[in-house]
Amino acid sequence: MLAEIKGLNEECGVVGVWGHPDAAQLAYYGLHSLQHRGQEGAGIVTTDGSKLSISKGEGLVTEIFTAEKMKELSGSGKAAIGHVRYATAGGGGYQNVQPFLFQSITGGLALAHNGNLVNATQLKAQLEGQGSIFQTTSDTEVLAHLIKRSGFPTLKESVKNSLSLIKGAYAFVILTETEMILALDPHGLRPLSLGKIGDAYIAASETCALDIVGAEFVRDIEPGELVVINDEGITSEFFSKSSQRAMCAMEYVYFSRPDSNIDGINVHTARKNLGKQLAKEAKIEADVVTGVPDSSISAAIGYAEATGIPYEMGLIKNRYVGRTFIQPSQSLREQGVKMKLSPVRGVVEGKRVVMVDDSIVRGTTSRRIVNMLKDAGAKEVHVVISSPPIKNPCFYGIDTSTTSELIASSKSIEEIRELIGADSLTFLSVEGMVEAIGRPFAGETRGSCLACFTGNYPTEVYDYELETVKC
Amino acid sequence: MLAEIKGLNEECGVVGVWGHPDAAQLAYYGLHSLQHRGQEGAGIVTTDGSKLSISKGEGLVTEIFTAEKMKELSGSGKAAIGHVRYATAGGGGYQNVQPFLFQSITGGLALAHNGNLVNATQLKAQLEGQGSIFQTTSDTEVLAHLIKRSGFPTLKESVKNSLSLIKGAYAFVILTETEMILALDPHGLRPLSLGKIGDAYIAASETCALDIVGAEFVRDIEPGELVVINDEGITSEFFSKSSQRAMCAMEYVYFSRPDSNIDGINVHTARKNLGKQLAKEAKIEADVVTGVPDSSISAAIGYAEATGIPYEMGLIKNRYVGRTFIQPSQSLREQGVKMKLSPVRGVVEGKRVVMVDDSIVRGTTSRRIVNMLKDAGAKEVHVVISSPPIKNPCFYGIDTSTTSELIASSKSIEEIRELIGADSLTFLSVEGMVEAIGRPFAGETRGSCLACFTGNYPTEVYDYELETVKC
Amino acid sequence: MLAEIKGLNEECGVVGVWGHPDAAQLAYYGLHSLQHRGQEGAGIVTTDGSKLSISKGEGLVTEIFTAEKMKELSGSGKAAIGHVRYATAGGGGYQNVQPFLFQSITGGLALAHNGNLVNATQLKAQLEGQGSIFQTTSDTEVLAHLIKRSGFPTLKESVKNSLSLIKGAYAFVILTETEMILALDPHGLRPLSLGKIGDAYIAASETCALDIVGAEFVRDIEPGELVVINDEGITSEFFSKSSQRAMCAMEYVYFSRPDSNIDGINVHTARKNLGKQLAKEAKIEADVVTGVPDSSISAAIGYAEATGIPYEMGLIKNRYVGRTFIQPSQSLREQGVKMKLSPVRGVVEGKRVVMVDDSIVRGTTSRRIVNMLKDAGAKEVHVVISSPPIKNPCFYGIDTSTTSELIASSKSIEEIRELIGADSLTFLSVEGMVEAIGRPFAGETRGSCLACFTGNYPTEVYDYELETVKC
Amino acid sequence: MLAEIKGLNEECGVVGVWGHPDAAQLAYYGLHSLQHRGQEGAGIVTTDGSKLSISKGEGLVTEIFTAEKMKELSGSGKAAIGHVRYATAGGGGYQNVQPFLFQSITGGLALAHNGNLVNATQLKAQLEGQGSIFQTTSDTEVLAHLIKRSGFPTLKESVKNSLSLIKGAYAFVILTETEMILALDPHGLRPLSLGKIGDAYIAASETCALDIVGAEFVRDIEPGELVVINDEGITSEFFSKSSQRAMCAMEYVYFSRPDSNIDGINVHTARKNLGKQLAKEAKIEADVVTGVPDSSISAAIGYAEATGIPYEMGLIKNRYVGRTFIQPSQSLREQGVKMKLSPVRGVVEGKRVVMVDDSIVRGTTSRRIVNMLKDAGAKEVHVVISSPPIKNPCFYGIDTSTTSELIASSKSIEEIRELIGADSLTFLSVEGMVEAIGRPFAGETRGSCLACFTGNYPTEVYDYELETVKC
Repeated sequence: MLAEIKGLNEECGVVGVWGHPDAAQLAYYGLHSLQHRGQEGAGIVTTDGSKLSISKGEGLVTEIFTAEKMKELSGSGKAAIGHVRYATAGGGGYQNVQPFLFQSITGGLALAHNGNLVNATQLKAQLEGQGSIFQTTSDTEVLAHLIKRSGFPTLKESVKNSLSLIKGAYAFVILTETEMILALDPHGLRPLSLGKIGDAYIAASETCALDIVGAEFVRDIEPGELVVINDEGITSEFFSKSSQRAMCAMEYVYFSRPDSNIDGINVHTARKNLGKQLAKEAKIEADVVTGVPDSSISAAIGYAEATGIPYEMGLIKNRYVGRTFIQPSQSLREQGVKMKLSPVRGVVEGKRVVMVDDSIVRGTTSRRIVNMLKDAGAKEVHVVISSPPIKNPCFYGIDTSTTSELIASSKSIEEIRELIGADSLTFLSVEGMVEAIGRPFAGETRGSCLACFTGNYPTEVYDYELETVKC
Repeated sequence: MLAEIKGLNEECGVVGVWGHPDAAQLAYYGLHSLQHRGQEGAGIVTTDGSKLSISKGEGLVTEIFTAEKMKELSGSGKAAIGHVRYATAGGGGYQNVQPFLFQSITGGLALAHNGNLVNATQLKAQLEGQGSIFQTTSDTEVLAHLIKRSGFPTLKESVKNSLSLIKGAYAFVILTETEMILALDPHGLRPLSLGKIGDAYIAASETCALDIVGAEFVRDIEPGELVVINDEGITSEFFSKSSQRAMCAMEYVYFSRPDSNIDGINVHTARKNLGKQLAKEAKIEADVVTGVPDSSISAAIGYAEATGIPYEMGLIKNRYVGRTFIQPSQSLREQGVKMKLSPVRGVVEGKRVVMVDDSIVRGTTSRRIVNMLKDAGAKEVHVVISSPPIKNPCFYGIDTSTTSELIASSKSIEEIRELIGADSLTFLSVEGMVEAIGRPFAGETRGSCLACFTGNYPTEVYDYELETVKC
Repeated sequence: MLAEIKGLNEECGVVGVWGHPDAAQLAYYGLHSLQHRGQEGAGIVTTDGSKLSISKGEGLVTEIFTAEKMKELSGSGKAAIGHVRYATAGGGGYQNVQPFLFQSITGGLALAHNGNLVNATQLKAQLEGQGSIFQTTSDTEVLAHLIKRSGFPTLKESVKNSLSLIKGAYAFVILTETEMILALDPHGLRPLSLGKIGDAYIAASETCALDIVGAEFVRDIEPGELVVINDEGITSEFFSKSSQRAMCAMEYVYFSRPDSNIDGINVHTARKNLGKQLAKEAKIEADVVTGVPDSSISAAIGYAEATGIPYEMGLIKNRYVGRTFIQPSQSLREQGVKMKLSPVRGVVEGKRVVMVDDSIVRGTTSRRIVNMLKDAGAKEVHVVISSPPIKNPCFYGIDTSTTSELIASSKSIEEIRELIGADSLTFLSVEGMVEAIGRPFAGETRGSCLACFTGNYPTEVYDYELETVKC
Repeated sequence: MLAEIKGLNEECGVVGVWGHPDAAQLAYYGLHSLQHRGQEGAGIVTTDGSKLSISKGEGLVTEIFTAEKMKELSGSGKAAIGHVRYATAGGGGYQNVQPFLFQSITGGLALAHNGNLVNATQLKAQLEGQGSIFQTTSDTEVLAHLIKRSGFPTLKESVKNSLSLIKGAYAFVILTETEMILALDPHGLRPLSLGKIGDAYIAASETCALDIVGAEFVRDIEPGELVVINDEGITSEFFSKSSQRAMCAMEYVYFSRPDSNIDGINVHTARKNLGKQLAKEAKIEADVVTGVPDSSISAAIGYAEATGIPYEMGLIKNRYVGRTFIQPSQSLREQGVKMKLSPVRGVVEGKRVVMVDDSIVRGTTSRRIVNMLKDAGAKEVHVVISSPPIKNPCFYGIDTSTTSELIASSKSIEEIRELIGADSLTFLSVEGMVEAIGRPFAGETRGSCLACFTGNYPTEVYDYELETVKC
């Protein structure tokens, strides 16, 4: 699936390292492995025990952090936190790139956040009414103000108290000169894993960031848990009554990297299982199976393996399409000029093709790909989707915008099929998805958030339809 | 296989468009689809019928050609030629980026070249001895000087005469204010295909460049053929006695894009067949098959399909590693910090893994990947290579450097296996490769160049071991 | 005098435009004419009546504001404020570039400041203690927090109340979506002039910014005055009991542009008069008079005119020395490699030279110039300084750092003469300076701040020796 | 006078250093001091005795040569040549930036040129007809081809022979791996001076480049002289029958830096004498004298000194106007927005002003300045020009373009006066100029080229009105 076209944007990633002389470098490699979660900007804040330093910018991790910039940061090697930010349409810009660093006479405070707060607007209005000045349009900054105004003698108490006021989905990594704090929302909507590398600790949104630096996986942070790491060691407590985990199911379907494990479940394996489950639910006579690169390849291979229909590379993605790619004009597009994705004529010509994709948001991308395959000679194109129809917006950090943009919220599957020009269209059932991933519904232990499919939101949604910059 | 690590560099790509008002744009999209053939630099020369314009630079196509730059070029929309250049170690730089444009009172001349001339050094010495001044260190410029000095009344005659003096592998695309000329060496070592888009012509190193602009494939340019396209139409003739085609086999194994067809054979299909053939030659007891991304995925899937061992994503490539990526220090590497490629622990842990790769040049990359897989818990790692051992240097445009760097030129397969730490190592046989690709040996009609495997070079190699900038 | 070498840094400039469709452009040209007051960074904030927009950056005005950036701003043409910032040694950076723009639900607030607050540290500590988060290390931000927390129903009242809490030197230009406010400290230590261009108003640190946009000079803003300009028109009131003006004398001697008038006195004329006064105080037998470019040329011409000794161009400044100039190594400097300033051998060889400079801070620059002139053959070098010895630090916006760096605070004139290697050294007397400029001592109507010469500071200096980023 | 506006462009500068371990750096500082002769681009070629290295770019010396770039070059410290290039309207670009470096199997050859060849077009046509390929559109490259084709056993002989074929104005600095050659045209139209710094030699277009590196002036290179410097030492011979020197008079009037000496005459002194001579020829009742910065300041001071009318800074130039300055729109210009030059109201208001400028080319700049002064309140503006009317184009390296653009070629002085709006206009007489500078007419020993004033060209002008890129 092509995120950029479809409008289902990825959703930030965080990393935190404590107790390593190369903390900044480890954060760099960690962010690099989380790059798929956000390409708009990235930042790193480090501490050497007495001073926080920041480096951030717009663009990719490798573009922002030159060897020179890293050298500046690495002087302060003791701990580091980092963040990658996803591309938003209009808002954003340099000032909204995280981590945010707030310096004051009483000490510095840096925050990195993956998720979205659902009562940020109300809290911000109250704070500004009392004279607080915000530096960004991000909901994340609200937490910083709450902490700074809370007046508790220790940071941990200030953070705990402030977290009790915010609602929504969040995995926070917080750094001061002398402490690193990890916090996960009471429903555990976003993943956050903890690892060790020697005596040092590393936390990250996905385990692939632990693997890339050779860290050993320790455990996942629990819903409502607050972890404090400092020179005294690591301590943990819960700031919220234990609630059932509601892990975002789309992390398995689309967002996370195939080599990551979430709650012990490998993402590639989950996707392959989604494909195998699809094979049970969608029986199709066909000659070849192909997946939309990159995120649907695993599901497509699973589908092929389960049905015995050979898997072929029927679509190829151009690796070099970047922000600076010049889009073809309308007239060139009509003459057939392609962009990121090309069909492989030698593979699909004269064939009945099963095209596996992971989701349909607006339907425009699917229509384009089906057209491409037919233009390249495919006799039939059967679209199978490795997740159920997305009918409801997400308020927890995924940019599916408003209900009106979600094609499945207003059209039947047959209407969608016709619109995208497929010979058949099959979505995975909610039950099939739950089964394939291997973790139960929300409300059960280690459950899933399926709100975008079912409309059952695990939290209240205060700021519904209000405009905020999420992350 | 990871080209950047292994040292088997890709080898330039050319494109030419005649008779289209958006010629420059079509060249841009064509080059973009050929980006895998060279990432060091790119250029486009256009003509509006009376004046040649050039734009070129170092880096990726999308980095070099901004919307602004394209606007300058597109004023001259009638014809355009373009070139992407591969990354060389030391030499290179802006001045060696092609196409080369030579302006003179008697008219302009632009050239783009894929391949390598084997007698460039001798010819250049002769020309310089007669007072010619070279602008570049590229062998390609030799042809320009020969043409300019040849003194024939027409460009076609000058080109034909000059081509008779040069030896080696070449696909040339030449542009003047009023003509475009295509030329392929007498052995057809490099691919060059012709397509039509409406009344316009487009030629390119691979058919994927034709597909991306919606062009219809017409035919492949033949060995020793000279094609002239101008306002009078298109004409063809042969400047060399017909000789047997000797198409570079590595185009199928590694260089070309999976969606390209060379001489009517689809590259993905050829690779999948290489994997299937490997399944016949290498019978291994294993739990999973995995391919080294990106170029070995097709072969791995073929191997899995033929053996019934499930294909899994055991290795994942970071898409965001670019020129600016900061390499981990030795000490960080020893602590396990990875770079472009990561093993998927959840997939390989406790498994007997078949790892399919397309070739082994120095062996260092293979050793690193095998180590990674073992560190991630693989019980056994069986390396199968979808081509025979590379024992001889290439003089036709592939940067395999000198014999001494080719591990298979001095070590036995068992020695290589031990060196890379694999539990077993199997190379495809030369016969198996020929069979799988589906085109015969050199010397036969539509034969292959297998020199790097067999040492049988289809041409004399005059400049052997001399230093030149190839392309 | 060479500011960059000597350490007497220039001290920011502000501009504000209200009621002109090209407000942003006028601010641009105004800032451009104030560039000599600060080269580290610059910014512009505009309003279109309902929204504030900002553009700022590090470097020169012409480097920061490209045609593209200006186009973005000019959409909002109604009013604009701007700022140029001087170069500081270490601190600074992008975040400290002004104007500062603070967006909030209750409306935006932008500030630009020339001067230095002497109780900023205390106020900031109080505000942070109450939970305010500061975005910068600049003293200017204190005023924004005070305004936002003040809770008065109108901006004017909030500003007035907040100004009553801050001490020091300031010329503030404040912009909201619907109002522009000008404010000058109760001693009027910094200049701020008001002009009209058609129906539009323009305020700026120097009148040269009014002239450059063709505006008509209206009057200088008075000490303790608050001017509010909005769609209703312009109103003025005083937020402080009338106090005697204490205009910085160094504005005449060194900082301001020769074509500016301050309180009706032309700067070039004042400098020429300083030179003429020097002629009375320092009678020297000499062959030529020369000035250190650029700021001492006027005084040198005045000296030459009054003494009859011919003025010659004995020193020449290289116009192209910028931030990127590579300083010669120590060994090259010893071989005589020069940097920004060169002696004109043809003019000084064999001559008795009077070298006029505007001030001596550390003495190192003077020593270097005297050496240069002697190396170029000058028989005698008589240094005459068009201001008295600087013995005390400035707390009002000029970067003379600490007392220990001021050579005149610890050494006698004879000791300084010896140190700089001059044949004679004469400073202007304080009385002579006051007389020549034509405005009386501090304490009198339209008086001067002479604190750096006399140690009589017009205000208390609370933060003495504390580290803040001034501007 | 403002060169950029007036169209009298500066005309390149060259430098050559032999025998110094910091040769590249010395070339850098030398070019830096010659920056006023050309701001379009600059380059340096160095040799370490066996290999030539080049670094060049568009823009100012300090922009092109970063510390990094210099480090690359300085490895090769033995000798270096450099060039600054003036800004041309359209042509130019990177490829025309000098020095040109031509690498070949028989050795490298680098050239830097100040001047203009008048038979380049004919020679180039001949060379291209014989198959030579030119890399640039510069006349300078012709010499390289002539040298390379000449076939003499030594470089010196090849250069001598080649110089005998070219006509026009030139100061050439040529570098090979082992030799540096200086050559001046037979009329010595351009300046070229030789200095020593320890055992090393340095040659440059102006003596200010010698001074800046602390070199000792040795002598000026003579017309028709060829100097060869290598490890054997320095030798000199003449390649042309001795002819009378015809030094460009405009070097004194406008081009050269005031601190340079040409043929022993200091430029500032010459200009001051021009001003004094003007005082004899133009007797005006006035209150103040002012000069147009920067080039006319010396003449204005001379005029003031001779007449006793006080010199004042009536016009001020903004130092920060660069290539990136955004020109005011027509409507803003009409409202009075100024650009590079501002009048000083406090100085000129109500006064009778003598405005000294160095030349009038098209008259548009003069008109603008006169208008400015009148708008600023000047009662009368008397324009006095420190050179005679320019009536004829220059073919020797100055970009005065065609006759039709020279206002004095078609209009009387009274017509020009009316057009520029001055109350009176006086040009210096040709005799007065010759007298003031102190070197005789062309044709005499150490004579001057006065062709632009008198039409008497010292050489034939073969390419008259043909388009070439000069330098």
